Amino acid sequence: MTDAATNMRLKLPLICIILEVILIILFGTLVQYNYETDARLWHEHKTNHSDYDNDFYYRYPSFQDVHVMIFIGFGFLMTFLQRYGFSSVGFNFLIAAFALQWATLMQGFFHGMHHGKIHIGVESMINADFCTGSVLISFGAVLGKTSPVQLLVMALFEVTLFAVNEFILLSALGARDAGGSMTIHTFGAYFGLVVARVLYRPNLDKSKHRNSSVYHSDLFAMIGTIYLWMFWPSFNSAITAHGDDQHRTAMNTYYSLAACTLSTYALSALTAHDGKLDMVHIQNAALAGGVAAGTAGEMMLTPFGSMIVGFLAGIISVLGFKYLSPILEEKLKIQDTCGVHNLHGMPGILGAIVGAVTAALATRDVYGDGLEDVFPDVAKGEIEASFQGVRQAISLAVTLGIALLGGLIVGFILKLPIFGAPPDTICFEDSIYWEVPGEEAGHDDQLTTVRTEESEKLNS
Amino acid sequence: MTDAATNMRLKLPLICIILEVILIILFGTLVQYNYETDARLWHEHKTNHSDYDNDFYYRYPSFQDVHVMIFIGFGFLMTFLQRYGFSSVGFNFLIAAFALQWATLMQGFFHGMHHGKIHIGVESMINADFCTGSVLISFGAVLGKTSPVQLLVMALFEVTLFAVNEFILLSALGARDAGGSMTIHTFGAYFGLVVARVLYRPNLDKSKHRNSSVYHSDLFAMIGTIYLWMFWPSFNSAITAHGDDQHRTAMNTYYSLAACTLSTYALSALTAHDGKLDMVHIQNAALAGGVAAGTAGEMMLTPFGSMIVGFLAGIISVLGFKYLSPILEEKLKIQDTCGVHNLHGMPGILGAIVGAVTAALATRDVYGDGLEDVFPDVAKGEIEASFQGVRQAISLAVTLGIALLGGLIVGFILKLPIFGAPPDTICFEDSIYWEVPGEEAGHDDQLTTVRTEESEKLNS
Amino acid sequence: MTDAATNMRLKLPLICIILEVILIILFGTLVQYNYETDARLWHEHKTNHSDYDNDFYYRYPSFQDVHVMIFIGFGFLMTFLQRYGFSSVGFNFLIAAFALQWATLMQGFFHGMHHGKIHIGVESMINADFCTGSVLISFGAVLGKTSPVQLLVMALFEVTLFAVNEFILLSALGARDAGGSMTIHTFGAYFGLVVARVLYRPNLDKSKHRNSSVYHSDLFAMIGTIYLWMFWPSFNSAITAHGDDQHRTAMNTYYSLAACTLSTYALSALTAHDGKLDMVHIQNAALAGGVAAGTAGEMMLTPFGSMIVGFLAGIISVLGFKYLSPILEEKLKIQDTCGVHNLHGMPGILGAIVGAVTAALATRDVYGDGLEDVFPDVAKGEIEASFQGVRQAISLAVTLGIALLGGLIVGFILKLPIFGAPPDTICFEDSIYWEVPGEEAGHDDQLTTVRTEESEKLNS
Repeated sequence: MTDAATNMRLKLPLICIILEVILIILFGTLVQYNYETDARLWHEHKTNHSDYDNDFYYRYPSFQDVHVMIFIGFGFLMTFLQRYGFSSVGFNFLIAAFALQWATLMQGFFHGMHHGKIHIGVESMINADFCTGSVLISFGAVLGKTSPVQLLVMALFEVTLFAVNEFILLSALGARDAGGSMTIHTFGAYFGLVVARVLYRPNLDKSKHRNSSVYHSDLFAMIGTIYLWMFWPSFNSAITAHGDDQHRTAMNTYYSLAACTLSTYALSALTAHDGKLDMVHIQNAALAGGVAAGTAGEMMLTPFGSMIVGFLAGIISVLGFKYLSPILEEKLKIQDTCGVHNLHGMPGILGAIVGAVTAALATRDVYGDGLEDVFPDVAKGEIEASFQGVRQAISLAVTLGIALLGGLIVGFILKLPIFGAPPDTICFEDSIYWEVPGEEAGHDDQLTTVRTEESEKLNS
Repeated sequence: MTDAATNMRLKLPLICIILEVILIILFGTLVQYNYETDARLWHEHKTNHSDYDNDFYYRYPSFQDVHVMIFIGFGFLMTFLQRYGFSSVGFNFLIAAFALQWATLMQGFFHGMHHGKIHIGVESMINADFCTGSVLISFGAVLGKTSPVQLLVMALFEVTLFAVNEFILLSALGARDAGGSMTIHTFGAYFGLVVARVLYRPNLDKSKHRNSSVYHSDLFAMIGTIYLWMFWPSFNSAITAHGDDQHRTAMNTYYSLAACTLSTYALSALTAHDGKLDMVHIQNAALAGGVAAGTAGEMMLTPFGSMIVGFLAGIISVLGFKYLSPILEEKLKIQDTCGVHNLHGMPGILGAIVGAVTAALATRDVYGDGLEDVFPDVAKGEIEASFQGVRQAISLAVTLGIALLGGLIVGFILKLPIFGAPPDTICFEDSIYWEVPGEEAGHDDQLTTVRTEESEKLNS
Repeated sequence: MTDAATNMRLKLPLICIILEVILIILFGTLVQYNYETDARLWHEHKTNHSDYDNDFYYRYPSFQDVHVMIFIGFGFLMTFLQRYGFSSVGFNFLIAAFALQWATLMQGFFHGMHHGKIHIGVESMINADFCTGSVLISFGAVLGKTSPVQLLVMALFEVTLFAVNEFILLSALGARDAGGSMTIHTFGAYFGLVVARVLYRPNLDKSKHRNSSVYHSDLFAMIGTIYLWMFWPSFNSAITAHGDDQHRTAMNTYYSLAACTLSTYALSALTAHDGKLDMVHIQNAALAGGVAAGTAGEMMLTPFGSMIVGFLAGIISVLGFKYLSPILEEKLKIQDTCGVHNLHGMPGILGAIVGAVTAALATRDVYGDGLEDVFPDVAKGEIEASFQGVRQAISLAVTLGIALLGGLIVGFILKLPIFGAPPDTICFEDSIYWEVPGEEAGHDDQLTTVRTEESEKLNS
């Protein structure tokens, strides 16, 4: 299994070290503590505020929940494959650790510059994790078919494009998207799908026997699922305004997810010929309610509205897994390993539409002075609520455009035969990039003998 | 493996969709944001308060810890069975997602109505999760022997009865039970035990070979155990008063659990003929200290008192597993899969008694003005502390009564032969309700054949 | 495998019960609620403060993150061994539950006495967990080769010495070490290494076939790794001053860890002859950035400086695993099961040095009035910043001295043949102290044969 092409001995260290050195230099040149993390600045303003005014106390618990979603949630969700657990958790770990540093710079460059410096604090940390989430969604589409070097290159470009798209949406167009239905989910999904399309492998069925789960790998994946599900309220509310906004967003998401779970179970049983539940649906579709509440979660969607959104998201997502994914693979040649189209793509679009409609219906009657938090331009009288809805709709179109175009270009870059991609016959296989230990069960002497011999062979 | 009786193709979708549609309609009719989640209301009161006054910042971190206990804690604790991991985590997920929505309505109906509307926020979310916890305790008693439809029906009724009992205890009787020794643990355990009694299966030993753990299933279960253990301080303190109360409750629980862990290990080794530790004890009895500190945790129990309570709880719980559970099964025909009597039943009663005694001993000397937070009626001079103790004792009796009677009725409802319960020969088996993938390393066709044959044998 | 010497039936219960009874008596005599957990005291001061001033709200979320690191992080990190998962999680659980109680007393005795009483609250809980962390680091060095009784005895002494060392450093010498590069990591690592040296087993290679991982045990270990990695920002910031200090410390640690992850992957691939990543490195070295930011994390290290520190820590740690550990074992006879020297020892020393340098460079220009939070003696003008650097350096030397001497003495105590240590032939084996269930159902001889053949094919 050692092969010159996929050997990472020089390629991986080279890219890791170059990227990190560049990051360190750029951080040294451009990045500064913001006034809430800087000892001098915080204490200069001390007369005007108390320690509990520090944004840390408003957002750090949410940040940690988001952090768990990024590293445990995404990482373990993808361990469902029988022989790809090391890579799922391990590459997720690597590209996330890179992406969050790069995102700090890219996002800072687009909307955090102060006198030529990027000021950072807990909010920029959350935003960096968010951007990272988008990259991990794309990772899901190409899971098992890419080398870690390819993934780092993808992250490099995707983070950059994410920041551009986010800037256009939030700053130029004035759209709202606190939980990232558009910026994170729609963008990450369609970017990844196009990359997967460009990297289409006609002979992937040679690795087909490894492209499925085993009993315990499905349980590991459920760790990822449940953490994503539980902490999604924190994700959607992490960067909304203080007070009622964070509170409301978390609650809307909570009910959306609960409703989504019931429709997921319903549809999973209904679409199986023998009524048996499918772990793929439970692991993924039950989360669609969080995605779909990403844009409108901070709005006055009401628990009732949130539940309807979640309910629909679960239905769409299961139907996507059941009927659309096979078509995407056969007709459009998109081999979407984790089904990100069903979990992030379609529910992301649903979330964007719900956000546009909810925004268009906003009134001062309903929001009171809280209108300023959610729709500042409407509150100031600069635009009508209906126009905010239009902004949201345009933002969805822009996101799709940048994701599709960006994915196309990056896909072709990743196709360059220098990044050590695995051959079609050994996809979904850890041992191509990892030292993999012997199999379980040393309970038996005979077995142990076999194992020991085998290890000796391996290590010789 | 497909059997008309246990086929969920129509039953499960039907009940899920009907329940969710009813929930959505009732939420649309009855539920509103409270003033801390509503944009208009929060900003109307803005002059009187700051954003950090929003209850979100006092309780949301605790809520998330509770949420982890409900979905990861309970879910993975029950994965100890070798062939029931999908169902343990998956049905836990399903019934919890339903129960928390239904609990919002039922609890709101009994103690959250304002002008005909139920007002919700982070505190109602915590309470809904608490109520859900009670259902999951009962689930533990019937684990492996019930269909998901039965579980949803059980949740429907149990949540309702939980809300009735909680209303009687907290509102009518004026009892204190912040961590739910009575309302959650005693209620859930005895309710579940009676249900298990009614659903007694004389031929369950035909599934006996599956009613045990394997090495990795015990490790998965430890994920559940450790999360429950770590976050129990948040559970008990989640809805106590702000300030010293939340702080004290968390700390009391922390020490109770630590002491409980030592007595659990001691008793586990002591009661084994060869001194070997039993995973069942560690997974369960080490948590009894959290249950037993549920009522008195918010009181001035002192760390010293908490440790004594935890120490005793661990002893009682291990002895229960070792000596009482076999008797319950043989003599009383209660097949308690997870031993909820030992983890939630007896420690819950212990917690109720400790709460009654601690309440009866309360004095203004010890509590100062803090008396109002913990025992408002005593603080106002309406009753003596000793009478608060009597209230607590009566509450325990009421809880036991409602749990036993409720469990009896609901047990008979669940016995109706329409819910798709598994036959005695295929209990504790995922493949009856789930698509189960091949065994580990199904890399080889031959292997798959072996498995399929075996499955057919099992299910024939 | 039942053996009189290792039989825990009386030894383990005896020590657990004696220790817990002593703890309860000492808590009853010495420990009191502090003014933030005491109902009367908190309400007496109520006119001067609001509920959100209670330290609970500043530190409890961090406490819970630290708690997860101690029980899930350390516990699961050590499950990488194929047959030692029960003991890894289970003994971790036991000794941590004991150590945190004992640490409350020892640390309280040295720096929490008020009129002869130890006052406790969330900060003492965090400190107790910190001290426990140190014991768990030492546990890593002797993992698989010690009985639970030995571990409890080790914890008893180590906690005591930890408190002495901590007192000397923080109180007598006036050093700063919020995240414990010295007090926790350096101390725990070198203490454990000396204990491992004293307990050297010349015939340990008889258990060699069990001293390695299997596929799923490595995935369980990644749960531990990722939780440690994610929550390390909370660990380092948990007891720093409110406001900018907690905020800054968390952020510095976040970037240090991210940079460390990239250098770990780079070095892991670079040092393997075939470029394959080694799970041992990923599981451990990627965390070294958290250790190395333990002392300087609260200082104005800048994100840029943090990244350099993390980057170096990852490199040192992987090189240690690859080249130094074999030397330690062969030449110095230190059998360091988990490689704590590479994860906690060297990165701890690095962290101490970075702390000393950063302290020596502190100026009022950079820290403003925040200087008082981080370097109170410098702020008061009592000492120069450069002398603070000297203090830090001396503290490292003192820590090493106490750890080495303490480990030596405790090692010899643990060598007494009364604690039931396992024989050399049955190290790294759960079944010596645990009831271990049978293998997974559905595995059968034929299966094993198939599996072995296939493995051979894959690895050829």
